[in-house]
Amino acid sequence: MTKRLRSKHLLGLEDLTPAEIELVLDTARPFRDLFTRSVRKVPTLRGRSVVLLFYENSTRTRTSFDLAAKRLSADTVNIAVATSSVQKGESLLDTAFTMEAMKADFIVIRHAHSGAPHLLARSVNASIINAGDGFHEHPTQGLLDLYTIRERKGDLKNLKVVIVGDILHSRVARSNLWGLTKLGASVILCGPPTLIPTDIASICPRRIDVVHNLDEAIRNADVVNILRVQFERQLEHLFPSIREYSLLYGMNRERLARAKDDVLILHPGPMNRGIEITSDVADSVNSVINEQVTNGIAVRMAVLYLLSLNQDPVPAEET
Amino acid sequence: MTKRLRSKHLLGLEDLTPAEIELVLDTARPFRDLFTRSVRKVPTLRGRSVVLLFYENSTRTRTSFDLAAKRLSADTVNIAVATSSVQKGESLLDTAFTMEAMKADFIVIRHAHSGAPHLLARSVNASIINAGDGFHEHPTQGLLDLYTIRERKGDLKNLKVVIVGDILHSRVARSNLWGLTKLGASVILCGPPTLIPTDIASICPRRIDVVHNLDEAIRNADVVNILRVQFERQLEHLFPSIREYSLLYGMNRERLARAKDDVLILHPGPMNRGIEITSDVADSVNSVINEQVTNGIAVRMAVLYLLSLNQDPVPAEET
Amino acid sequence: MTKRLRSKHLLGLEDLTPAEIELVLDTARPFRDLFTRSVRKVPTLRGRSVVLLFYENSTRTRTSFDLAAKRLSADTVNIAVATSSVQKGESLLDTAFTMEAMKADFIVIRHAHSGAPHLLARSVNASIINAGDGFHEHPTQGLLDLYTIRERKGDLKNLKVVIVGDILHSRVARSNLWGLTKLGASVILCGPPTLIPTDIASICPRRIDVVHNLDEAIRNADVVNILRVQFERQLEHLFPSIREYSLLYGMNRERLARAKDDVLILHPGPMNRGIEITSDVADSVNSVINEQVTNGIAVRMAVLYLLSLNQDPVPAEET
Repeated sequence: MTKRLRSKHLLGLEDLTPAEIELVLDTARPFRDLFTRSVRKVPTLRGRSVVLLFYENSTRTRTSFDLAAKRLSADTVNIAVATSSVQKGESLLDTAFTMEAMKADFIVIRHAHSGAPHLLARSVNASIINAGDGFHEHPTQGLLDLYTIRERKGDLKNLKVVIVGDILHSRVARSNLWGLTKLGASVILCGPPTLIPTDIASICPRRIDVVHNLDEAIRNADVVNILRVQFERQLEHLFPSIREYSLLYGMNRERLARAKDDVLILHPGPMNRGIEITSDVADSVNSVINEQVTNGIAVRMAVLYLLSLNQDPVPAEET
Repeated sequence: MTKRLRSKHLLGLEDLTPAEIELVLDTARPFRDLFTRSVRKVPTLRGRSVVLLFYENSTRTRTSFDLAAKRLSADTVNIAVATSSVQKGESLLDTAFTMEAMKADFIVIRHAHSGAPHLLARSVNASIINAGDGFHEHPTQGLLDLYTIRERKGDLKNLKVVIVGDILHSRVARSNLWGLTKLGASVILCGPPTLIPTDIASICPRRIDVVHNLDEAIRNADVVNILRVQFERQLEHLFPSIREYSLLYGMNRERLARAKDDVLILHPGPMNRGIEITSDVADSVNSVINEQVTNGIAVRMAVLYLLSLNQDPVPAEET
Repeated sequence: MTKRLRSKHLLGLEDLTPAEIELVLDTARPFRDLFTRSVRKVPTLRGRSVVLLFYENSTRTRTSFDLAAKRLSADTVNIAVATSSVQKGESLLDTAFTMEAMKADFIVIRHAHSGAPHLLARSVNASIINAGDGFHEHPTQGLLDLYTIRERKGDLKNLKVVIVGDILHSRVARSNLWGLTKLGASVILCGPPTLIPTDIASICPRRIDVVHNLDEAIRNADVVNILRVQFERQLEHLFPSIREYSLLYGMNRERLARAKDDVLILHPGPMNRGIEITSDVADSVNSVINEQVTNGIAVRMAVLYLLSLNQDPVPAEET
């Protein structure tokens, strides 16, 4: 019997069981291997339509989903907010109803408001994939981080993973926290006190610690996941100066030298080289940042494929 | 013998005979049924190129044509004016010549100037499809409205159709007027006197009436097609206040209750909920607004297919 | 044995041998013939991914590459700078690393800085195609100009080709200079003294002349390639007035009448009709401007195909 996810939507790692997360990672592996074949494409989703509905700019995530869908032979349609009917004042839900009526099989949505993908999932028949909602979750980023760590370390169980930076405003951090703790890793959150929510450890109190000193945090770490400083969010009042941030929370050669020899360095990209990470760390043998990108496509192919198994055999007709 | 349209272009419903309109609607039906199959795609236009040349923003129409073309296995290229050579001052015709030289088989054009698609049709070898030109026509919107009404009512003949709103600036209204009257329906136009051209009934004097009172207009109506209030056109001087407009010309539950039980509510979208239509009407059992969207793709597939039958077997070579 | 280019990148015509240029032109011909078949598509690059990374706006070149890739059955992804991570401050190289990690097989790049494509070619595993870098080169434009001339004249050897306009800021001129002289043509550069670099003839001193008087330059010319006046570059201080420019360097009916009967008129587009070229010249029998556009797709298909022969059988894995 084919193993399946329980839902036809992917809204967050909070909703997945450990077995479901493992299923996605296991399913991603053959797609990952596909990239080294001469025809890097399978006919799995031929004739299906994937709408990429991005209310926030993104090259990396949008392109990754676009290529993932195309490598499954699906058709993709890009809707960027700047050119969408949103400008004409249409509501998010009406836009989604329209995409559903066009028989979109998947709607991949990025939106500044937490919960926007959940609203869609409750309302339309298409599979909804959360590509980042406010400060809430970015589940495919979490999954690709887990995949990358598991490929290198074999197992997540009892690994010590440090997440460094602005935890407060990071959907990447939140999806990582759910996924890592579900798979048995321990997480240390590290960043300026203003940027770590006081109740964050409640996600999994046994497995989450907060340490404000980076040198202390990375001692004995198996993985360091470095968050991007999001200048575009204009959070100056919560932030030390860039220079001070780099000094206290930037990952550099000296810190790397004091970490375990086989520590993995992750970053969701795009990087601010010289700020949260120096170039020698980003380009070091410990860095798996480019692997994350490659694995991201495989993981997204796995998600599209697994969700398609839960869709109605034919799209629901309006009645 | 395969039935055909007379032209390889679709510029407006004014140019089509009743039999041609019926041909498009008949051809759309099997494409509509395709959406409920597991592979929702046919190889009909494999290797053909469709250029979507949009000089005005549109998600809905562009996406609908994009999906229609892809479900016929054609390749699509999006050209939005913001990123086009138009910015470098190239004329519309030179842009079209370029697309023709690239062996585009279809150019789907939306343009603020009435007649822009006709200029192209006189000048280039590709099939031109009008996706909205100024206040003139939006023929595929007209066709999808006709298709939707016919599916529900069986026949257009002698139906009483009310079109409500800003008739003056509506290419949707104009394409509906041509299509509805050609298929034998009677049309009542309803809106503020400033927004109904005095000579509009000359399109088909026997079948077109103007009534300024909405309650009177919808009495005994089989269909009410509600036009979008186009705030973006800045027509304040012709418009009552939004509040007054809603009061006089907005479709709401009370008005719906006084209409025929099986009246159909249409809207070309995107809707301004609470202005020209209330949510309880938009989401009522009388509403076929989402069906319009679905049918729009089938109708556009039918148009692309029928026009392709009239293209030269091979593209004309420059000599 | 299949003939091949020496590199898997196309950075400029400066780097190609005459035999390599001829190979591209020879390879383009069957692709050109493909456009007259009923299915205008071949499966050559099925499953390959082409990223169109445009840091400057372009409809013409981007669309041409997009269609060329699709007619080879490759998948394409458009990344326009306005919506890219560049806005988030990511470096060009990191963007390229990301595309490589996504297993892009080709990166087609347009960038305002000369040498940007070379930087990428030194750094990533994908094939890099220069689609215009600063004032440096635009090799596929050069190749399509050569193809167009060769189709009409049979051979480039000993042809007299005039290039008119702003040579200083023209990557089109530079790629033409390399290509034309390598294939044995003689080139006369013509334009205002402020817009012709003093050392430009050093590319091939035997075959390049500078003549400031257009009437003199085009006497006995076989080809006149007219450069676009690039208003968007705001070069007023180097330019005479538009009126004076037209008078001195605009190609018009009187000048055409004094040229050879079979002189070819080329323009890379988009044209400023009435400025560097009058409409009667642009639309004359001597004009091959639309043929250039058609040939451009064939030449780009040839380039993609030939470069693919030099790629690793499978994409390199990160280690």
